[in-house]
Amino acid sequence: MSNHTYRAKWIVPVDAPPIEDGEVVVEDGGIAAVRHRSVGSDNVRDFGDAVLMPGFVNAHTHLEYTVQRGFLEDVPFFPWVRALNAAKAHLSPEDWLLSSRLGAMECIAGGITTIGDNTDAGVTMRVASETGLRATIYQEIFGIDDREPIDPILAALRAKIEAHRRLASDRVRVGVSPHALYTLRPELLRALVEYMREEQLPSSIHIAESPAETALTELGEGPFWEMYLRRGITWEPPRMSPTHYAEALGLLGEGTLAIHCVQQDHADSDAVAASGASIIHCPKSNAKLGAGIAPLAHWLKTEGLTVGLGTDSAVSNNTLDMFEEMRMALLMQRGVRQNVEAVSARDVLRMATLGGAEAMGWGAVTGSLTPGKRADLIAVCLDHPHTTPATDPVSALVYSARADDVVMTMCDGETLYDEGAWRTIDETGTLSAAREIRARLADAAKKETSP
Amino acid sequence: MSNHTYRAKWIVPVDAPPIEDGEVVVEDGGIAAVRHRSVGSDNVRDFGDAVLMPGFVNAHTHLEYTVQRGFLEDVPFFPWVRALNAAKAHLSPEDWLLSSRLGAMECIAGGITTIGDNTDAGVTMRVASETGLRATIYQEIFGIDDREPIDPILAALRAKIEAHRRLASDRVRVGVSPHALYTLRPELLRALVEYMREEQLPSSIHIAESPAETALTELGEGPFWEMYLRRGITWEPPRMSPTHYAEALGLLGEGTLAIHCVQQDHADSDAVAASGASIIHCPKSNAKLGAGIAPLAHWLKTEGLTVGLGTDSAVSNNTLDMFEEMRMALLMQRGVRQNVEAVSARDVLRMATLGGAEAMGWGAVTGSLTPGKRADLIAVCLDHPHTTPATDPVSALVYSARADDVVMTMCDGETLYDEGAWRTIDETGTLSAAREIRARLADAAKKETSP
Repeated sequence: MSNHTYRAKWIVPVDAPPIEDGEVVVEDGGIAAVRHRSVGSDNVRDFGDAVLMPGFVNAHTHLEYTVQRGFLEDVPFFPWVRALNAAKAHLSPEDWLLSSRLGAMECIAGGITTIGDNTDAGVTMRVASETGLRATIYQEIFGIDDREPIDPILAALRAKIEAHRRLASDRVRVGVSPHALYTLRPELLRALVEYMREEQLPSSIHIAESPAETALTELGEGPFWEMYLRRGITWEPPRMSPTHYAEALGLLGEGTLAIHCVQQDHADSDAVAASGASIIHCPKSNAKLGAGIAPLAHWLKTEGLTVGLGTDSAVSNNTLDMFEEMRMALLMQRGVRQNVEAVSARDVLRMATLGGAEAMGWGAVTGSLTPGKRADLIAVCLDHPHTTPATDPVSALVYSARADDVVMTMCDGETLYDEGAWRTIDETGTLSAAREIRARLADAAKKETSP
Repeated sequence: MSNHTYRAKWIVPVDAPPIEDGEVVVEDGGIAAVRHRSVGSDNVRDFGDAVLMPGFVNAHTHLEYTVQRGFLEDVPFFPWVRALNAAKAHLSPEDWLLSSRLGAMECIAGGITTIGDNTDAGVTMRVASETGLRATIYQEIFGIDDREPIDPILAALRAKIEAHRRLASDRVRVGVSPHALYTLRPELLRALVEYMREEQLPSSIHIAESPAETALTELGEGPFWEMYLRRGITWEPPRMSPTHYAEALGLLGEGTLAIHCVQQDHADSDAVAASGASIIHCPKSNAKLGAGIAPLAHWLKTEGLTVGLGTDSAVSNNTLDMFEEMRMALLMQRGVRQNVEAVSARDVLRMATLGGAEAMGWGAVTGSLTPGKRADLIAVCLDHPHTTPATDPVSALVYSARADDVVMTMCDGETLYDEGAWRTIDETGTLSAAREIRARLADAAKKETSP
């Protein structure tokens, strides 16, 4: 039986108050004890002036887009989505795999141990398994054109899900992502709801992200509507908010992640809460794309609503950094509401760990340092000038610490990263492959824009 | 004659487009050339996959408060200011010095080479000189009570300024900070305007920061007004906005930094521009204290208005990190305006370097990599997963890079920081002194709150 004790100046269990001079005992990959420092010294590692806390849960990302970091800057939401799709033609399955591995490197080095990953190419099942991340991988599905028959689309999805299930494990689960209300027609969405219910598949859907989406569902106008007209697509606007439209289609329920929800009024967020679905907040991506600032402070006061935090992809952020995501979530709410009580450091730390875990159905397994849960554990050093002096460890984590302060990342008791070295990823190979893919993408873009 | 060549994959001069595969030639502490890579190899240092750029100009901070990082969390602006002042009683001049040195460590490691520093204790002249930072040190002055005579206040200020001038140098200049409109009575502010004009002293004043300040000057109500009543202070509200009140008193002009300006309408920012004063934007501090989100996008379109960027102090931020400050400035504007064109990556990079330099009157000396300016130069590594791949160096700096990516900081040709080592500061001694001071502060706070 393997048994290790990890000590630090602070333990931040998240579901309990911080413990000064504490330790976490890990047995067979699970958390056996979280307590004040004991006297034993066998198999002990002491991180010193550091925090031991649960690994972050990045509840919404697209690892496969990492190689496109910084590729589409300063573009409004609608042309951004179109350009992102156009670039997909230049990438092979092997490229998507390498791109996802680069994203996994960044996640692991920044203390992320669980991801909610949307995949179109379908490669991130393999990357999660290889790298040791805990994950729910949501296979994305698209289909707005009413002239395309539904059965082949569903058959292709079934085949992908079956293939993913062969790679599933205790750490990696399979889900479905109906991409968005504006990329799937209602009949297909209804068929997906039925399929996901039958197969008990969790889901993730981008909802109420941009004003363009609201214009489409409420009014039948705006850039999405104009694209439908140009492409000859028939689509009847439901004349309701994106959230209520999703609710009416049966898309919201236990196990559903409603991603973004920027364009929501109180009735919309009440509808999410009542359905049992959770909201995943991606504040940096929402701001960068000009989508807006979501009503997070209201969500946190909404009875029964679970809120997680996600980085979204490197194309719209441009980093997969949960420290910055926590900080930005908190500061944006305080700024826009002119109220320091709008959101607290504890609120965003919880969202970044247990909130995301509960949203994705991993709450009994990870998201807090609790005896009986799996050992998803990170050490964050507080010994640098920018975190000195630190009195309250939660304040230090949320306001001062950076992804670079993570010195060790462990998932399920397995060390994935330690003192700057990745244990499950070839660092040099992955970085140079990413640069090579990007050079090819840039060449292709140049050729397309030259006469 | 000393002559060194620094090479990198990218040079970002700020006042000119980026140069791929470039070099910066430094002679006698000045910039001799900025160009494409040449063939020579004498005295060459190649930073590889990195950016060489001008050192950041942190145009508003209070280094002496660094030891109070995280000391006052989640408190609205008015009680925050009061608690900060109360804590001052527990710190000795030696403590302020150590606290400022800790702040300088963080600045230098994060690529800041110039600071606009407000000091009450007066210690940062010495810290700037010792550590090699370029600085304008603004001696703060307070005096709201109309029963206190003005002459002794002015005499004390004169003595401090004379002492500071003995420490001034090519790199360190002296200024005055009339602290704020709500901490100085109008007669004293007018006397200060006259003194600063006579002595040609640059100035820095906190203006239009919180809604409480607007309530005071426009309406004669709110928490500041109530404090005046409690303390028996006579003060006549000018019945105008803080910015127009400052203008009417003659406080705004060439060489004035108007710090914050969150609570401004277009007429207010036009008044700043017309006066020749500059605005220093501190977005993280403004958000954290619930002051709001300043109209930055409007300022950038205002003819003749110079805008710099500042971190404010570690008590209200909680870091002195210009990468995060740039990112947050940009993202908050895009989020609140739902517009990706509100502010660009180039805008915030310029604010963080040349904008701040021009605001403080250092524009001919620093803020860009321009032949003839002094060699205030930093190297930012782009070789990590979170900055890979990087195509546009400005995008990589603003959206992805972190303070930890700074590998070398040089001011006036002198290397202050290199590969994790501070050349002018005792790292271990400063960090442990800071922890000791903080423990004392915490003890004092405990005693005060116990019965």
